[in-house]
Amino acid sequence: MIRHTLMVNCPDRKGLIFDITRILLSHELNIIENDQFVDTDSNKFFMRTEFTGSFDSGRLYSDLEESLGREASLKLLGSRKKNIVILATKEHHCLGDILIRHFFNDINANIQAVISNHEVLRELTEKMDIPYHFVSHENLSREDHEQKVMTILNQYNPEYIVLAKYMRILSPSFTGLYPGRIVNIHHSFLPAFIGANPYKQAYARGVKMIGATAHFVNHNLDEGPIIEQNIVHITHKESAEDLAKAGRDVEKIVLSKALQLVLEDRVFLSGNRTVVFR
Amino acid sequence: MIRHTLMVNCPDRKGLIFDITRILLSHELNIIENDQFVDTDSNKFFMRTEFTGSFDSGRLYSDLEESLGREASLKLLGSRKKNIVILATKEHHCLGDILIRHFFNDINANIQAVISNHEVLRELTEKMDIPYHFVSHENLSREDHEQKVMTILNQYNPEYIVLAKYMRILSPSFTGLYPGRIVNIHHSFLPAFIGANPYKQAYARGVKMIGATAHFVNHNLDEGPIIEQNIVHITHKESAEDLAKAGRDVEKIVLSKALQLVLEDRVFLSGNRTVVFR
Amino acid sequence: MIRHTLMVNCPDRKGLIFDITRILLSHELNIIENDQFVDTDSNKFFMRTEFTGSFDSGRLYSDLEESLGREASLKLLGSRKKNIVILATKEHHCLGDILIRHFFNDINANIQAVISNHEVLRELTEKMDIPYHFVSHENLSREDHEQKVMTILNQYNPEYIVLAKYMRILSPSFTGLYPGRIVNIHHSFLPAFIGANPYKQAYARGVKMIGATAHFVNHNLDEGPIIEQNIVHITHKESAEDLAKAGRDVEKIVLSKALQLVLEDRVFLSGNRTVVFR
Amino acid sequence: MIRHTLMVNCPDRKGLIFDITRILLSHELNIIENDQFVDTDSNKFFMRTEFTGSFDSGRLYSDLEESLGREASLKLLGSRKKNIVILATKEHHCLGDILIRHFFNDINANIQAVISNHEVLRELTEKMDIPYHFVSHENLSREDHEQKVMTILNQYNPEYIVLAKYMRILSPSFTGLYPGRIVNIHHSFLPAFIGANPYKQAYARGVKMIGATAHFVNHNLDEGPIIEQNIVHITHKESAEDLAKAGRDVEKIVLSKALQLVLEDRVFLSGNRTVVFR
Repeated sequence: MIRHTLMVNCPDRKGLIFDITRILLSHELNIIENDQFVDTDSNKFFMRTEFTGSFDSGRLYSDLEESLGREASLKLLGSRKKNIVILATKEHHCLGDILIRHFFNDINANIQAVISNHEVLRELTEKMDIPYHFVSHENLSREDHEQKVMTILNQYNPEYIVLAKYMRILSPSFTGLYPGRIVNIHHSFLPAFIGANPYKQAYARGVKMIGATAHFVNHNLDEGPIIEQNIVHITHKESAEDLAKAGRDVEKIVLSKALQLVLEDRVFLSGNRTVVFR
Repeated sequence: MIRHTLMVNCPDRKGLIFDITRILLSHELNIIENDQFVDTDSNKFFMRTEFTGSFDSGRLYSDLEESLGREASLKLLGSRKKNIVILATKEHHCLGDILIRHFFNDINANIQAVISNHEVLRELTEKMDIPYHFVSHENLSREDHEQKVMTILNQYNPEYIVLAKYMRILSPSFTGLYPGRIVNIHHSFLPAFIGANPYKQAYARGVKMIGATAHFVNHNLDEGPIIEQNIVHITHKESAEDLAKAGRDVEKIVLSKALQLVLEDRVFLSGNRTVVFR
Repeated sequence: MIRHTLMVNCPDRKGLIFDITRILLSHELNIIENDQFVDTDSNKFFMRTEFTGSFDSGRLYSDLEESLGREASLKLLGSRKKNIVILATKEHHCLGDILIRHFFNDINANIQAVISNHEVLRELTEKMDIPYHFVSHENLSREDHEQKVMTILNQYNPEYIVLAKYMRILSPSFTGLYPGRIVNIHHSFLPAFIGANPYKQAYARGVKMIGATAHFVNHNLDEGPIIEQNIVHITHKESAEDLAKAGRDVEKIVLSKALQLVLEDRVFLSGNRTVVFR
Repeated sequence: MIRHTLMVNCPDRKGLIFDITRILLSHELNIIENDQFVDTDSNKFFMRTEFTGSFDSGRLYSDLEESLGREASLKLLGSRKKNIVILATKEHHCLGDILIRHFFNDINANIQAVISNHEVLRELTEKMDIPYHFVSHENLSREDHEQKVMTILNQYNPEYIVLAKYMRILSPSFTGLYPGRIVNIHHSFLPAFIGANPYKQAYARGVKMIGATAHFVNHNLDEGPIIEQNIVHITHKESAEDLAKAGRDVEKIVLSKALQLVLEDRVFLSGNRTVVFR
C-alpha cells in the first residue's frame, strides 16, 4: 500500500492534533506513524503523519488549511523519489557512498547530476551513469563561478542540493536561492577549532575524537541547522593526516544518514534548529 | 607481585628502546607491559614500562640517566596511591562518582580533601569521611580567594588537583604553580560554542550530541592538553536544561576515566598534547 | 505548572488519536508532549501524553474508558515520586550511582530500602540514610530465601524493584508476583556467550567491546523486554578482569538511564518488547 | 622513505625487546613505531615494529632467527599491496564500500576478483574494472560448489579472502586451507540470538542496538578470532527490516576497518584471540 506523508508546521494552539486527526479520519485515511513536537520557545507546532488510503488531495489540503489557518505550512508528500544534484570537489568518500546507494536503489532520490570544480570524480560518476559537469573556478570570480553552477542547477531544478565535500565557500546570494534545500557535511571537533587547517589544530591539542556534522546551509555556510552528528575516537598515535582519514569515514556515514532523513521527509526546519522525527 | 612503572620522556635517537631494555635486563627486571611513542613533530620519545622484580632504585636511576642524558625526564613509580585534592562548586555528579569509587577503594588515589566555594557538597563529602573546606569567594578578589585556596592546598600538598566542576576561573598565577597537575572537565559541543551559556547556544542550533573533555589545565583554563573525551546523542525533544543533564552524565564518566589514566601513570604531557598508553 | 502523564495501551483502530485528543480537549487540558506508536505485528496502539491543566480524574478516566473500550489499559500519573526497593549483592557500582542521584534528588524515586544477601553494601547505604536489610541465603533453600525477601518487600510495597547486580537467580514464582515491575541489569557481549563465566569466554575470543542490557524481568531472568543498552570498546590488552571492570562502568550508566525512563513513565511493555518514548 | 614492518610472535622470555632492538640497531635501521604485547595466559610475546632504512633481509632474518629460536614466527613486510579475492552473494553494501576504496587507491590491497553465487553484483564489480566470477550453487553439493570456488581461487592465489556478506556456509575442509587468511563479517546482537532469522528474534525482544563483528574464520564459520566490532542504536519504531538495514551500515564500516588493520599488518592471531596494534 502506498504511504503518504503529511508535514504540518504552524503556531501552537490547543486542539491541533485533534483537528488534524479529525480531518484525516473524515477522509477515511489510516494513520501508520505519527509524530508531533511543540517548540515551546517559538510556540511552533510540528507534526508528521504517515498514512495510507486514497483521497482527493485538493480537498484534503483545503480542509486542513481551513482548520489550521494561513500561517500553517503544509506538505503532502507521496513516496516519489526526490530529485537531487550533488556538488563535490576532489574527495570521493561522501560522493562514492551516495552513488553506490543510488546505484542499488537504496536511497529515496534520483541523482540528476554531479557538479564539480575538478575532474577527479568524473570517472566514478560516469561509471555510475550520472552526468558530470566540470565547472572550473580558475580565473573566475566567486560570483562568476557560482553563476555558471547556477546555470547548470537551473537545467535540473533539483529539490535538494547536496554538498558532498564541496570545498568552495558559497555566497549568501547563492545559498539564499535554496533556503532549507542545501545539505552540507563538515568536520567537527570537540572542542571546535576555528580558522585554517582544523585537523592540524586538533592534532596540536591532542584531541581524542573527531566528528562530523550534517546540516542545512543558511547564509553562513557552516552554521545552519544541524541534522545529524557523530564522532570516532582517535589516539595520540594518529597524525593530522590520520585524523583527516578517520574524519572521512564518519563524514560519509553522517551525510548519508542525514540525507536519508531529509529524503524521507523526516526533518523540519524550526528557526536555526531542526526537528527530526526518526 | 608488586608492579613498578618507569616513565621516560627524552629527545628521540636511534637505540633508545635497546638501551632502556638493556638496563632493565641488567637489573634482572621482568617487563610486563611496554609502550613507546615517538612524536615526530617534536622529535620526542615516550616510553612507559611496567615491570616486576626487586632493584636498587638509586642505581637504576643513575644507569638510566647516564645512558639517556640530561634532557631525559624519568619517573619511577610504585603502585602507591596518589594524593589528590578535589575542587568543586555545587554540582555533585563528578564529585559523587569519584567519592563512591574512592569509598570502595576502586581508584588509585587517596582523596585528602574537598575544597568548595559553596556548602552544597559538604554533607555528601563528610559522609564519605573526607574533610571539606568551604572557601567562600564572596567579597573577595579573585587573587585573595585563590590565596585562601592555596593555603589549604599547601597543607595537603597533593600530587594532583581535580577540578570536579569547579566553576571559578583560575588565574595563570594559580595554575602556573601546578603545571601538568590540574585535571579539569568541561562540556564540549560539536561544533563548539564560545562565550556565555553554551548549552543555550547549542540548543539554539539544534545540536544532536553533546560531549565532555577532560584535560590538563595550563595558563588558559579550558585549553590544556586533552586526556579523554566522549559524547552522548540527543534529540530536538531535549531542552537546554535536558542538554545540561545529559552533559552531566558524560562529564562524570569522562572525568573518572581520565583520572584513572592519570593515576595509573598512563598519561604523558607532550607540549600541548597528551600521549596516553591505555 | 504540574505535568500529568496519560499512558494508553489498547488494540489499534482508526481514530484513536482523534478520540483521545478530543477527550483531553473537552477537559480543557493542554498537551505538552505527545507520542504514539502502533505495533503492527500485534495491532496494539500505544500513546503517552504529557499535559497540564486541572481536571476531575474520575470523569477523565470514565470518558476515556467509554471511548477506548474495556481492553484498553490506562494509566494517569502525576509527577509523584515512585517508591522503589533495590536488591543488590556485593558490587557497589550500580547501587552507588543510584544512591548518589537519590541523595541529590536527581531521580524520580523514593528509595524505600536496600535488600542484600551480603553485608558489604550496608555502610554506604546507611550513610545515604536508606534502610538496609541483610537476608543471608546461607543454609536456606532458594524458596525460603525468596520468602524472606518477599516478607520485607511486602512491608514496603514498592512500585518497582531494581536488581542492581543482585546475583541470585529469582524463581518464576517470585518474578511472577511483580510482572513488569522488576528492572534488571546484565552484562552483554557481542556475540553473546552463554553459560558460566562470560567474561572469561569473551576474553578467550578476544571481543573488542562489551555491553550492558537493562530489561524488565519475566519468568526467565535474563530474557525479559529490553529497555536500554550500551557498550564500551576494549582491546586485547585488557584482561578478563579488566573486561569486568569496563563492564561495570557501562552497567551503571545503562541501569540509571533505564530507571530514569521507567520512573518518568516513558516505557510501555508490548509482549516481550518495550516501547520507549524518550 | 619506504617503511618496513617486522611482525614477531614467539614464546615470551626476558630480554626479547632488548634482543630484537639490538639486532635492528646492528642493521642500522630506524624504528618509527613499535608495539609489543605479552599474552600472559599463553606466555606468548607479540611485537610489531615499523622501521626505515636499507638492509639485507636474508641477514636480518637469520640474525633474528638465531636469537629468537625456532619457535618464533617472523614476518618481514614491505608496503606492497596485498592480493585479495572477495566472496559475496547479493548484498552490495560491504562489497560497494571496498570497491570504492579500491578504485581510489584508499586500501592497501589489490582486488584480484569477486566470486559470487549470484549475478546481482556483476554490474557494479565490472564497472569498477574487477573480474567477476559467477559460480552458481544450484544443483550442486556443498562440496562440489566449494571445489569450483577453490579452482578459481587457485588461479589467483590471494593472500586474503574476504567474505563480504557471502551467505554460504563454508565447510571446515575449505576454511582449513586458508588458516588466518579468511576475514568474515557477521551481524551481532546484544544479547545474541542463535538460530534462524536473528533480526526477527532481536526485533521480538525489542533490542535497542545492533552490531557487527569482523573476524577471522576458523573451522566454525562464525566463531573465529574477533578483529573489530561496533554497534548502532535503534528504537522500537524500527521493524525487523529496518534493523537489517541499520545492520548493513555498521557491517560495512566494521568490515572495512578490519580489512584496513589486516592489510596494514596490524593484526596477530593468538589462539582464538587477536592482538591488534592500531
